[in-house]
Amino acid sequence: MTTTFLTEQIHLKKSFLCIGLDVDLTKIPAHLLDAEDPIFEFNKAIIDATHDLAVSFKPNTAFYEAYGIKGWMALEKTVNYINANYPEIFTIADAKRGDIGNTSSMYAKAFFEDLAFDSVTVAPYMGKDSVEPFLEFEDKHTILLALTSNVGAFDFQTQNVDGATLYQKVLETSQTWKNASQLMYVVGATKASYFGEIRQWVPDNFLLVPGVGAQGGNLQEVCAQGLNKNVGLLINSSRGIIYAGNGADFAVQARAEAFKLQTEMAAILAERY
Amino acid sequence: MTTTFLTEQIHLKKSFLCIGLDVDLTKIPAHLLDAEDPIFEFNKAIIDATHDLAVSFKPNTAFYEAYGIKGWMALEKTVNYINANYPEIFTIADAKRGDIGNTSSMYAKAFFEDLAFDSVTVAPYMGKDSVEPFLEFEDKHTILLALTSNVGAFDFQTQNVDGATLYQKVLETSQTWKNASQLMYVVGATKASYFGEIRQWVPDNFLLVPGVGAQGGNLQEVCAQGLNKNVGLLINSSRGIIYAGNGADFAVQARAEAFKLQTEMAAILAERY
Repeated sequence: MTTTFLTEQIHLKKSFLCIGLDVDLTKIPAHLLDAEDPIFEFNKAIIDATHDLAVSFKPNTAFYEAYGIKGWMALEKTVNYINANYPEIFTIADAKRGDIGNTSSMYAKAFFEDLAFDSVTVAPYMGKDSVEPFLEFEDKHTILLALTSNVGAFDFQTQNVDGATLYQKVLETSQTWKNASQLMYVVGATKASYFGEIRQWVPDNFLLVPGVGAQGGNLQEVCAQGLNKNVGLLINSSRGIIYAGNGADFAVQARAEAFKLQTEMAAILAERY
Repeated sequence: MTTTFLTEQIHLKKSFLCIGLDVDLTKIPAHLLDAEDPIFEFNKAIIDATHDLAVSFKPNTAFYEAYGIKGWMALEKTVNYINANYPEIFTIADAKRGDIGNTSSMYAKAFFEDLAFDSVTVAPYMGKDSVEPFLEFEDKHTILLALTSNVGAFDFQTQNVDGATLYQKVLETSQTWKNASQLMYVVGATKASYFGEIRQWVPDNFLLVPGVGAQGGNLQEVCAQGLNKNVGLLINSSRGIIYAGNGADFAVQARAEAFKLQTEMAAILAERY
């Protein structure tokens, strides 16, 4: 999928919402646990109920790997279901991978070919040759961790590296890599005050923004500094939407929460574009 | 597994060799491709042929994920086979994971409980709360990326952070985290000249050292500076051993290569301890 198409979808749906499919069997409605594949049944219900309010779905691979083979099968079924039924959706494998060159190539193959995701999140610590194998895939996107939403972001990411912060260094250095236009970046909503300077360094790239909702990030503050001419933001909410309800009507409850965020986004878009 | 037990095994086997099980279906002997599970059959043959010469096996998860469900099943069968037949072996899931706290907990569950590995490699970029969930598991080990073997290590890891390098900062900061004694570190053999100063910062922790063999690292140089009172090194070789042969006798060829490294290690141990 091209970013041009993604921006068109955002304007069409009046939404730049990404829904995080972080499925925990201890939190989903009890009646689903009898299904043959509870994780997929849960995802399917959430996707069907919210696909018109969101432009992206983002399964975090940790939640699938924790259930072994069954989890991996549920992940495969989920992305296949989205691709078959809602091909306009931008799919993100939130995998935070990254390894030496030949190994990163295997990860890229896993997520772009075997699972057919549109994008994958990648950690920058190992540098250029760990990221470029992902960037080789045409119309696929590599979402590099820059400034994450957790407290640990202050351990290394905001440290001073030769007059700049480490995350600034990651943003600026990665812009020199091959196919850098296919890069997006993770920037946490809990770091809203940083978006202004980040847009100076990467004015054109999409930012994937977790941390709205359960983690306390504020949508208005992020948008004030983070939007660019192509919108350029994907705001993720996971727990706040998918666990909005815990009964038979959980998907309806999830839709209601997604609708609240989408309504807020529609107003922001109307004002800005 | 405790590090005390691991050190005992090293002295018993006169080896601190770790064999990387990075299985690529385009490189394994053609006759195995007819097997029901070629990846597992390959691993089983390599493990049976070399288990007495190595103290550790390290599957890199990328090579398994690239084959989807079948790959994940092969990974599970491989670690189960090692645990059932050679419980004295220290198993490493080379997964380079790391995410916000509740998500890292899911990864830790995946690798320590579902797959029952002794250790997992973790990327440090997201800081303390992304790593501590792994450290909560007793007698399990978290192997943090510090100075990796690839060229990209110079993009960020060796950059100057307030008078120190980033990887020094990672080593020193992580030593203040809860259960830091369960930390090990990845330091590439291609960076042999750095081991002296690294041992000043982390004198006691084990170092997992990839990059001997195909990547050009030198065993003698690494050992000269890297050994500590408990040996403290696991030297990994992947391609140099597992792809030593490509015919019916591939496991014999792999054993011969492992034997060369083990013989060299035995001499080093005899001289030092």
